[in-house]
Amino acid sequence: MTPAAALDHWQGHRRLTRRVIDAFPDDKLFTFSLGDMRPFGKLAQEMLGMAAPMVQGIVTDKWDWTMSQDQQPKDALLDLWDDATEQINQLWSQIPAERFHQTFNAFGQYKGKAYDLLLYVIDNEIHHRGQGYVYLRALGIEPPPFYERK
Amino acid sequence: MTPAAALDHWQGHRRLTRRVIDAFPDDKLFTFSLGDMRPFGKLAQEMLGMAAPMVQGIVTDKWDWTMSQDQQPKDALLDLWDDATEQINQLWSQIPAERFHQTFNAFGQYKGKAYDLLLYVIDNEIHHRGQGYVYLRALGIEPPPFYERK
Repeated sequence: MTPAAALDHWQGHRRLTRRVIDAFPDDKLFTFSLGDMRPFGKLAQEMLGMAAPMVQGIVTDKWDWTMSQDQQPKDALLDLWDDATEQINQLWSQIPAERFHQTFNAFGQYKGKAYDLLLYVIDNEIHHRGQGYVYLRALGIEPPPFYERK
Repeated sequence: MTPAAALDHWQGHRRLTRRVIDAFPDDKLFTFSLGDMRPFGKLAQEMLGMAAPMVQGIVTDKWDWTMSQDQQPKDALLDLWDDATEQINQLWSQIPAERFHQTFNAFGQYKGKAYDLLLYVIDNEIHHRGQGYVYLRALGIEPPPFYERK
């Protein structure tokens, strides 16, 4: 799998996650949850806090994990999502192919090869997004189809 | 990422999914759900129906998607899971590296490169397992940690 194909795969997942965020009513995004878990807005903020910062770290070996924990309007969250999309695309093109196999200590605590660290971020997004699907179903809202990534 | 690393990554996920199955009380595995979704036992059966059959298809270009839809005891499901683990390991070693980039029409309906088809199976497992986490939390059960894959 080429770096370009991996980016395309991830951005396909991110397009789907964006649709899941957008499927929540604004007044449920940071208030509704099940099983005492975090609401989907908080999960999406976690994704944002890991995504572009992880790629930036792989490019620069500087690690800055700052994520907003505050409730915010859906439109503001979607704007941050779109900003991250652009950042990821721009940073990705600065990663030399061999760097994907270099070992980093991400955020000073997660040691692994760059491609494994990126896989963790993507897998974490899929994991939490699946939880968002349950929230949407419990709210009586049909989630976007899982296979649609365009 | 080498085929061996990809297999290891997937089997790590499958070990975690096995722990999630095992975390369900036997009487909840096929009965409990949220939002009118399928119970976790059915989701696990879907994973089993896709996993080894997909790898077998990539090895043989024969596609056999048979998955049990019947309720079964947790131990029986875990035995099937372990059988699939062995099948996947044995079949994987029969995939020549270049075959991961070959295009297949999986199960007569899903057209894609082998590595993309396999990624879909893994992503689908993570997605549905995330839903299982919500079920467990709603049942008052602490799910196994997401980052533990040994």
